[in-house]
Amino acid sequence: MTDQIKELIKAAKERAVKETDSEPEPALTSAVDWPVDCKVGLGLEGAVACETTIGYVNGSKGWLIYRGLDCFELSEFSTFEETSYLLIFGKLPTQKELDEFKAKLGKYRVLTQEEWDAVNALPLGKGHPMSDLRSAVSVLGLLDPTSEDTSVEAETEVAIKLIAKLPVITGIVARTRHGEKPLQANPDLSLAADLVRMMSGNEPTEEDARVMDVCLILHADHGMNASTFTSMVVNSSLSDMYSSIVAGIGSLKGPLHGGANEAVLKTLEEIGSPDNVDAWYKKAREQKRKVMGFGHRVYKAYDPRARVLHPLAELLSKRDPKIQSLYEIAVKLESAVISELGKEKKIFPNVDFYSGIVYAAMKIETEMFTPIFAVSRVAGWTARVLEYLKKNRIFRPRGIYVGPAREEYVPIDKRG
Amino acid sequence: MTDQIKELIKAAKERAVKETDSEPEPALTSAVDWPVDCKVGLGLEGAVACETTIGYVNGSKGWLIYRGLDCFELSEFSTFEETSYLLIFGKLPTQKELDEFKAKLGKYRVLTQEEWDAVNALPLGKGHPMSDLRSAVSVLGLLDPTSEDTSVEAETEVAIKLIAKLPVITGIVARTRHGEKPLQANPDLSLAADLVRMMSGNEPTEEDARVMDVCLILHADHGMNASTFTSMVVNSSLSDMYSSIVAGIGSLKGPLHGGANEAVLKTLEEIGSPDNVDAWYKKAREQKRKVMGFGHRVYKAYDPRARVLHPLAELLSKRDPKIQSLYEIAVKLESAVISELGKEKKIFPNVDFYSGIVYAAMKIETEMFTPIFAVSRVAGWTARVLEYLKKNRIFRPRGIYVGPAREEYVPIDKRG
Repeated sequence: MTDQIKELIKAAKERAVKETDSEPEPALTSAVDWPVDCKVGLGLEGAVACETTIGYVNGSKGWLIYRGLDCFELSEFSTFEETSYLLIFGKLPTQKELDEFKAKLGKYRVLTQEEWDAVNALPLGKGHPMSDLRSAVSVLGLLDPTSEDTSVEAETEVAIKLIAKLPVITGIVARTRHGEKPLQANPDLSLAADLVRMMSGNEPTEEDARVMDVCLILHADHGMNASTFTSMVVNSSLSDMYSSIVAGIGSLKGPLHGGANEAVLKTLEEIGSPDNVDAWYKKAREQKRKVMGFGHRVYKAYDPRARVLHPLAELLSKRDPKIQSLYEIAVKLESAVISELGKEKKIFPNVDFYSGIVYAAMKIETEMFTPIFAVSRVAGWTARVLEYLKKNRIFRPRGIYVGPAREEYVPIDKRG
Repeated sequence: MTDQIKELIKAAKERAVKETDSEPEPALTSAVDWPVDCKVGLGLEGAVACETTIGYVNGSKGWLIYRGLDCFELSEFSTFEETSYLLIFGKLPTQKELDEFKAKLGKYRVLTQEEWDAVNALPLGKGHPMSDLRSAVSVLGLLDPTSEDTSVEAETEVAIKLIAKLPVITGIVARTRHGEKPLQANPDLSLAADLVRMMSGNEPTEEDARVMDVCLILHADHGMNASTFTSMVVNSSLSDMYSSIVAGIGSLKGPLHGGANEAVLKTLEEIGSPDNVDAWYKKAREQKRKVMGFGHRVYKAYDPRARVLHPLAELLSKRDPKIQSLYEIAVKLESAVISELGKEKKIFPNVDFYSGIVYAAMKIETEMFTPIFAVSRVAGWTARVLEYLKKNRIFRPRGIYVGPAREEYVPIDKRG
């Protein structure tokens, strides 16, 4: 069964290689010579924030690289546990290192009674699940006596704890929302399988577990995005790893960032049937409405993550006519958008376009998509926080004051 | 009594004017023409992140300006409530506007039973009080049904709620740490007086209330510092105000940012007596040890906030021989540092140098200094978040990849 997934990913990789063959191989950059001359746009676009050896996105070839390794190959061969190790420690583990790392993740995944009680005592299920996640991670920080040790070693251990515990919290949040009893972790399962189990209540099939694993691998890091940057900024005052990840969760929560795949699924549901795609798209163009799940600040080629998720969405869609219909709508919408905007404007589907269908096929409710994103991205957040911590400098860009010059304080009875 | 405080601030302002008279009046900048050419250093030093009309620090003249108004005059004549209004709404309020704003702050300051129970159910008092504050604000967000409305209007209302509620939470955190019963707010008091009361258990003297008010005014905004920037980055994904302020609290927590006045007080206590200052300082210089509370990335003149706080520290120190000794140590240390580094290196005391003595004189324990900072700075955080929201663009600087080129995935049994 998972051999089929492997074959699908291999085929996606081969298509990617073929289609971007003519693009020039990018030249890698050498160390940054600070200060750097930058053209800085709104949102700090173009400003160089740091050097990194963690991850690399090549927009013209459509590459996503973690520590030198291509995300196609990681999706084909690796696991989320191994990929997290790679991101945090900078190299693929030996069998012994991987076994130890997985044992540690399993151990930390089981919440202590104190952690369990404190998280479950929170008023969960009233607001956005990401707000629940944010509060739960903050509370875990209160209970961790090592949280104030901001040495690289101590923060690395907290990073591993957070990678382990986010799936459990996500499970608690998912189930509490519907008054279902939350579940403790089962350290014998893979992190991906246990995540699905703690959300749904049932141990997933081998296929679902592996597809979730691939989703977690593909979302683990993606350059200097807003949430990663947020975590780094917080940690740069030598705050602590919990504060940094709490902040990253708050940033990822925003619809301009983590919320996009929710929006895609809502669009597909709004379109309703494959026959309605052309009419819907024509109208969206006329209204200059942004079609969610397309285009990316960095990619000018097809997003490699969408390449992998597309065939996995197709595979999983076959089990349910409703999902199959969503998948067919997506394929038709993709071809409508690409035929109009693909060649000239280089607008292609991004990671969010197919991930929603994959999660929906696993019967995961839309509101939980962003927490799953956080379960994965925490590996990238923590890896980059730790990297920056080693050569830390507090982030302090400039704001240009364009307000009034110095004025007299007018007493309240003289104000107009 | 508070007339004396007014006189002291007025005299501090006059000294500032006299001493920086020869410095040229700064030319105000006009609107930014994006993109801007910047020389960007580590920590994004020099990168332009935004335009602002909220606050301005002139390092060479030692000016701190909020919305065109000098912090000396605000300390002399204004209140924290009025200053918050100024920061958020961009102008000084009329009497009617101020009355309404204060009534709203008073109303929001009293936690609802649900808020009270949820905050007091947290495992407070185990770790850093800023982690407690972070968790409590996160939980308030869970209970606010308006938290997901990210319109400017709705986020402005949340800003006012947070300005109102942070003093109460700080009180709860302060008292819970020592097993003391937390106190609800008294909306009839000024925010500053109520803050002191909810921490200490006793209604403060008029003098203490006014000095706290001045401290809150002086800490309310200070350019694009790391915590303000953090809050803006989080909100730029169109996340929500609670997530943004939770992140700001996490950032302020770090010893490179909000924790500096704690460190100053520890230094003064370590020195122990005025007679020991010269020997201590000589040794610190030999060990190239950083003396906390001096120097600032922006100020090359005496920090105006330190100018105001110095005489207030002197005033309050008279009530307690232990505080008097700390004050005398501080004065002697200041003169040792300035005589060596003041003229050439332009190193002067910063805001943190005297604020700790002021708080200690009010019998506030050192660990609560940074939460008090947050009570004040939340006005600046929310004002700048709201300003950026109006012309929002997600923050996404660049990381330069200097890691390995694309490598083969080596199967686990072949790894060295």
